Amino acid sequence: MKHLPDYIQRIIDDFDKLPGIGPKTASRLVFSLLNRKDDVQRFSENLAEAYQKVNYCEQCYNLTDKKFCSICSDPQRDQTVVCVVGHNQDVDSIEKTNQYNGLYHLLNGLLSPLEGVTPDDLKINELLKRIEKKELKEIILALDQSLEGEATAIYLTKILKKYPSVIVSQLARGIPMGANIEYTDEVTLSSALKNRNKL
Amino acid sequence: MKHLPDYIQRIIDDFDKLPGIGPKTASRLVFSLLNRKDDVQRFSENLAEAYQKVNYCEQCYNLTDKKFCSICSDPQRDQTVVCVVGHNQDVDSIEKTNQYNGLYHLLNGLLSPLEGVTPDDLKINELLKRIEKKELKEIILALDQSLEGEATAIYLTKILKKYPSVIVSQLARGIPMGANIEYTDEVTLSSALKNRNKL
Repeated sequence: MKHLPDYIQRIIDDFDKLPGIGPKTASRLVFSLLNRKDDVQRFSENLAEAYQKVNYCEQCYNLTDKKFCSICSDPQRDQTVVCVVGHNQDVDSIEKTNQYNGLYHLLNGLLSPLEGVTPDDLKINELLKRIEKKELKEIILALDQSLEGEATAIYLTKILKKYPSVIVSQLARGIPMGANIEYTDEVTLSSALKNRNKL
Repeated sequence: MKHLPDYIQRIIDDFDKLPGIGPKTASRLVFSLLNRKDDVQRFSENLAEAYQKVNYCEQCYNLTDKKFCSICSDPQRDQTVVCVVGHNQDVDSIEKTNQYNGLYHLLNGLLSPLEGVTPDDLKINELLKRIEKKELKEIILALDQSLEGEATAIYLTKILKKYPSVIVSQLARGIPMGANIEYTDEVTLSSALKNRNKL
């Protein structure tokens, strides 16, 4: 947009780099933001603060501003169960169920040969070190039901066989809330049948 | 997300306030951004610069960092034609056609009784003052084909009757590139028929 001042183009570029945001959306967001000048200042200050403070938990690699995150340093949580997730937002989704009282381990992504994400790019060695350091009862794989998630689950299951004392489990596959049988795919429906519950 | 540090929640809230971005998308964007620490700093600095510099052209209300925007201060552009648009991004769309060499006037929104946007909220008086100050040949209304856009066009057409020497026109309605006749709505098709071109 050559008719716009450079500084605006730079913010549009910043937004454009975020996942799922293209140049059109980026400029719409920037124009909306610039119309609220106080918000621009606060936004800038908050980002500056994040730049200073952003840090990863030394145990689970979740975002924190201390050495360990609030979940890892909570003595009331079960230190012997670790839920392995791909992304930060997955922790939040699981926390919202209020059904899980163990710890987490963030891989920081999922295996993807297409995008060049190999096991070395993920926090897998860190997970193995964690198992060797502390006695764990169970590792729950809570990974996306995507090609990448499945590839990561298969890889992890294989290398976790080295630790026979640790139970490795994964989230149940089944029909999600609100779904119709008619529109449920065969793989999901097969799993739902296989893992049916007694009433 | 009570397990996250406050400073992260604040940035998520900042993103959440942008149009079309909900809390889920906001946290996804923030997590992605925080993984690229240099980008956080640059983003923050660019916003701080924008906060300092953001300014509106005194003639057309487009974003600029000077008194007048680059379009208004371009002597090669036709100063007697003004294209009235609702939003900043509309200027960019029209500029990209390379078919328009006049000036713009940004209303900063469109009339919307539902959302409480009245003529006083838009830069309509500023447009009238502009007409009175400088002799204009033509005003082109380039407003969205939405309820709000049409309401604004009707309102403007009515008050612009006060200036009989100025031609008021609006963008042609017709079948967009790539569309099928079968799926084109009746209003569009009627206009396309009525405004048919000789070959």
